[in-house]
Amino acid sequence: MDTVQQLEIEPGMSVYALVERMSRCGFGARRLAEAVAIYEKMLTGNFTKFLTLSGAMVPAGMRHIVSDLIRKGYVDVLVVTGANLVHDIIESFGCHCLGKAESDDAALRASGVSRIYDVFLRDEDFAAFEELMQSIMPQSSKTLSGREMMSILGSRIDDERSILRSAYEMKVPVFCPALPDSMIGLQAWMYSQTKKLTVDAFADIKEIVDICYACERSGIVIVGGGVPKNFALQSMLVTPKSFDLAIQLTTDSPENGGLSGATLSEAISWGKISEKASFVTVYGDATITFPVMVAAALERLKNGSHPP
Amino acid sequence: MDTVQQLEIEPGMSVYALVERMSRCGFGARRLAEAVAIYEKMLTGNFTKFLTLSGAMVPAGMRHIVSDLIRKGYVDVLVVTGANLVHDIIESFGCHCLGKAESDDAALRASGVSRIYDVFLRDEDFAAFEELMQSIMPQSSKTLSGREMMSILGSRIDDERSILRSAYEMKVPVFCPALPDSMIGLQAWMYSQTKKLTVDAFADIKEIVDICYACERSGIVIVGGGVPKNFALQSMLVTPKSFDLAIQLTTDSPENGGLSGATLSEAISWGKISEKASFVTVYGDATITFPVMVAAALERLKNGSHPP
Amino acid sequence: MDTVQQLEIEPGMSVYALVERMSRCGFGARRLAEAVAIYEKMLTGNFTKFLTLSGAMVPAGMRHIVSDLIRKGYVDVLVVTGANLVHDIIESFGCHCLGKAESDDAALRASGVSRIYDVFLRDEDFAAFEELMQSIMPQSSKTLSGREMMSILGSRIDDERSILRSAYEMKVPVFCPALPDSMIGLQAWMYSQTKKLTVDAFADIKEIVDICYACERSGIVIVGGGVPKNFALQSMLVTPKSFDLAIQLTTDSPENGGLSGATLSEAISWGKISEKASFVTVYGDATITFPVMVAAALERLKNGSHPP
Amino acid sequence: MDTVQQLEIEPGMSVYALVERMSRCGFGARRLAEAVAIYEKMLTGNFTKFLTLSGAMVPAGMRHIVSDLIRKGYVDVLVVTGANLVHDIIESFGCHCLGKAESDDAALRASGVSRIYDVFLRDEDFAAFEELMQSIMPQSSKTLSGREMMSILGSRIDDERSILRSAYEMKVPVFCPALPDSMIGLQAWMYSQTKKLTVDAFADIKEIVDICYACERSGIVIVGGGVPKNFALQSMLVTPKSFDLAIQLTTDSPENGGLSGATLSEAISWGKISEKASFVTVYGDATITFPVMVAAALERLKNGSHPP
Repeated sequence: MDTVQQLEIEPGMSVYALVERMSRCGFGARRLAEAVAIYEKMLTGNFTKFLTLSGAMVPAGMRHIVSDLIRKGYVDVLVVTGANLVHDIIESFGCHCLGKAESDDAALRASGVSRIYDVFLRDEDFAAFEELMQSIMPQSSKTLSGREMMSILGSRIDDERSILRSAYEMKVPVFCPALPDSMIGLQAWMYSQTKKLTVDAFADIKEIVDICYACERSGIVIVGGGVPKNFALQSMLVTPKSFDLAIQLTTDSPENGGLSGATLSEAISWGKISEKASFVTVYGDATITFPVMVAAALERLKNGSHPP
Repeated sequence: MDTVQQLEIEPGMSVYALVERMSRCGFGARRLAEAVAIYEKMLTGNFTKFLTLSGAMVPAGMRHIVSDLIRKGYVDVLVVTGANLVHDIIESFGCHCLGKAESDDAALRASGVSRIYDVFLRDEDFAAFEELMQSIMPQSSKTLSGREMMSILGSRIDDERSILRSAYEMKVPVFCPALPDSMIGLQAWMYSQTKKLTVDAFADIKEIVDICYACERSGIVIVGGGVPKNFALQSMLVTPKSFDLAIQLTTDSPENGGLSGATLSEAISWGKISEKASFVTVYGDATITFPVMVAAALERLKNGSHPP
Repeated sequence: MDTVQQLEIEPGMSVYALVERMSRCGFGARRLAEAVAIYEKMLTGNFTKFLTLSGAMVPAGMRHIVSDLIRKGYVDVLVVTGANLVHDIIESFGCHCLGKAESDDAALRASGVSRIYDVFLRDEDFAAFEELMQSIMPQSSKTLSGREMMSILGSRIDDERSILRSAYEMKVPVFCPALPDSMIGLQAWMYSQTKKLTVDAFADIKEIVDICYACERSGIVIVGGGVPKNFALQSMLVTPKSFDLAIQLTTDSPENGGLSGATLSEAISWGKISEKASFVTVYGDATITFPVMVAAALERLKNGSHPP
Repeated sequence: MDTVQQLEIEPGMSVYALVERMSRCGFGARRLAEAVAIYEKMLTGNFTKFLTLSGAMVPAGMRHIVSDLIRKGYVDVLVVTGANLVHDIIESFGCHCLGKAESDDAALRASGVSRIYDVFLRDEDFAAFEELMQSIMPQSSKTLSGREMMSILGSRIDDERSILRSAYEMKVPVFCPALPDSMIGLQAWMYSQTKKLTVDAFADIKEIVDICYACERSGIVIVGGGVPKNFALQSMLVTPKSFDLAIQLTTDSPENGGLSGATLSEAISWGKISEKASFVTVYGDATITFPVMVAAALERLKNGSHPP
């Protein structure tokens, strides 16, 4: 049996150097190192790469990690909550602010501030968002899929660091299966009161299932569970294929029985993930684990990865 | 200051008798008692009552609690994940099984069993589900809202304990904002390949926003967070109204920054919940807290509630 | 395979009636029902019954549940944190108050209030505690074990609902393995500056190990993990015996690797729990799960238990 | 208001470079960056530095981080669980192994392996531990404090990377307030059956309280809560002083009401932490957050820290 090697810190060490040493530790440290190893394999091998994104990742500062991964060709399919796209669009012209979790929420409301844990958003940015949305919403006599609408919106956002814009430029399909559950959905509905815009609720299904069918080998990074996790896994389930590599970063526990904390092993019983797959779940706040994982994996690639 | 009263157990005591005593305790016990008090107020007062449902509540055995609440007139609006509706439909003809969380998932797959934590589902029940769906899916030349489709499905399910059927009979609107992210969505898409069925992704927004506008006073019970939580809160946000009563049962923590664990106080900063609202979050597994809350509140009502 | 039976609520139902129905549900509900079944077996069979108690259970109102269990003969060995005993003693003359978790802690300090989440404690009660302790501390030329000191303190507390007093009267040994880590320890040390009082740090080990050796069959209820959990399990480990029944109520998750969340299965690998044992972990706030479990089990016993 | 700055990953970046960018993010990322800033201040300023250690940190590979901090003069007082010291001693001659969390625990027992989540320990290492302990236990006619016993054990461990040895050499007092709750305690008790060894349960209190009294300014790093957290905070509480800097790394949530998850703000109400203190809690697995925090802070110091 291999032995635990007590972790040695060297001041100034790189992120990967630290993570590499975690691979001989226990608990979360080892899982994080496994995630990096699987991610390296995913990025260097011939895998169709899915990324699913839940939780307020963009307000928390994770936007450029995602758009950079897209631009580097490390994302083939993005499945995402509407909220992350709303905040992606807001960042293209406005900002989020460093707030405090322990705040007087009634006072915040009185001063026109909405709170996302310790991040603040000002009403004027929401107002500008609404104005922008009304100006870039697509008019179309043809019924669109959600993916098509996301692509058109992406083409009209004037910020190359935008997730939607980057996906548009890189031809990465963006799926937002709970589109009505977001301010983009709300704005689309308002727009459709006076202009021609119809989105078919089910059209995305065909598009993503086609992608799944076409995969030779596939890998998935699941950040935060929720609808994006389920939508990606369910789409693969419809096909005879299954994911070969899978990484899950979540704060939820399996014991609660919900999907966001469900083990990836559970997904094997469904046929969503291959029984031969390499997979790992890293429990913890993805604002820590996601940047560390990406930084470590990109460092490996830069230095000429030799995955084991 | 009121004092903690050490809880006294009396063998044979009713659920409410126990919960009532928890109101003078600390921590989760007190929160659960507050939830019951708020729920009693919601059910006895003149409130438009929202219920949002996430997590695998139906597989875990919470289906009849929901359908009974609907039939008793205690739910005016239901917002729910597609998965819960899928399993509601499966229960109308098939079953879920008592399994084990520690299982060999590859062996389960080999024997045609899908696992949801410690609940098992057999492939034949999924096959029967698919067959049923193809026979009850609505054909319509008119574009439907998701709510309309749910209502038609409900009318065609032959099981009075079904959530969908009960909602249909009681004229309770059912919103499933992530409809494509479910096997109902998948079946609808397959059906639409050969038959006429189109669902407008945004039509539900108008319907639920209209309900929110029409509310004089409103209360919400949020089970499990996720898309249903956000969709209900966002819909109220669009209006000048806000929720007057709110109960959240969740396993997520505020510290993670995600919506499922976000405090209800945070929702005040957005204007989703009134700053004068009574609200409480009960942290813990909703398969325990939801039945206890409902049993205690219904006992109060049966005995002639006199909310404080 | 047995099927999930959807839970039916009947207004006015007893706690056991509700829990019994949870036995055919999934997730936490089923685990709670299993805990009740195991507890019923423990209380009706010929088992040496250990109870370990961590977390601020007494401030939160769980004191009388514990002292009643002791007086009913349902506890043979109590292993507990010092803090719970401190608060047990405070309750014998003073009180804890219903506070708020969201408080200005600096303002509380200024007004002489210490906070335990949403429970408040006034400085005057601590002062009275200190005075009482100095008056009831044992003077002894003989070196005492911690258990002996707890017994003497129990004999001098004038409150029959006290945990320490109840244990003294019922001859139930009380072990507090982190005694120095409590205000009892602090007071003992102050007392020993002028009076004769010496406690041997290791004497308790012999006493509890002797009990473990003498067990024919044994069961353990672990509330909250921590030092009390480990001390009880480690003591059994030293002997050729192991626990036959085990229930764990905890908010911690196995994934973190710490003992408080470790599965009871893990304890089998150590030989602390028998591989033939019946055991279950209920994840969640023990201020909810502990009263529900005890109420349900006592109801069974009152009605003439027939454990399966 | 300062704005969130979307985090930029640069392949090859150092740990501090990454963490520094987290300071402009939200949620756990920002808290981790705050922890590093406070730790840097603690290590560069004139603070008496406390470190408390709970959870199976040594089996998980965190031993050398601790012993290096001690040898670098970055720890003035160590408060620790017995288990971590047991495993520190085992590492001085034996090893821990990389195991699997999903194991057949009965089979592990049969093959003489004890499991700590995904770390394995062989019976022969425990046997060697017991033998070593019987050979290095101090014989003393004088009653010892726990701290004295730890110091003597440290002097007799032949491994300069050992925590106990490093503390001995650096004259750092090691407090283990739940000493009987560990295999060191068990071995001490066995030894005392035939040799002269008595440890006064309360003697450590005086020693640590004296240190607290003598502090001009003080800081504390709390890894994992539990008894070590409480013992350190309680000792400061006895004095007119309070901690000026505090960092807590924990997987527990405040909502459960227990001490391990209690906010550091709560400690202000007790007077354990100064109301003017800088403090932060990082929620998550300490096998990730502790190495990252230490690596980042040491990098700052190496590069000539200029704390803000």
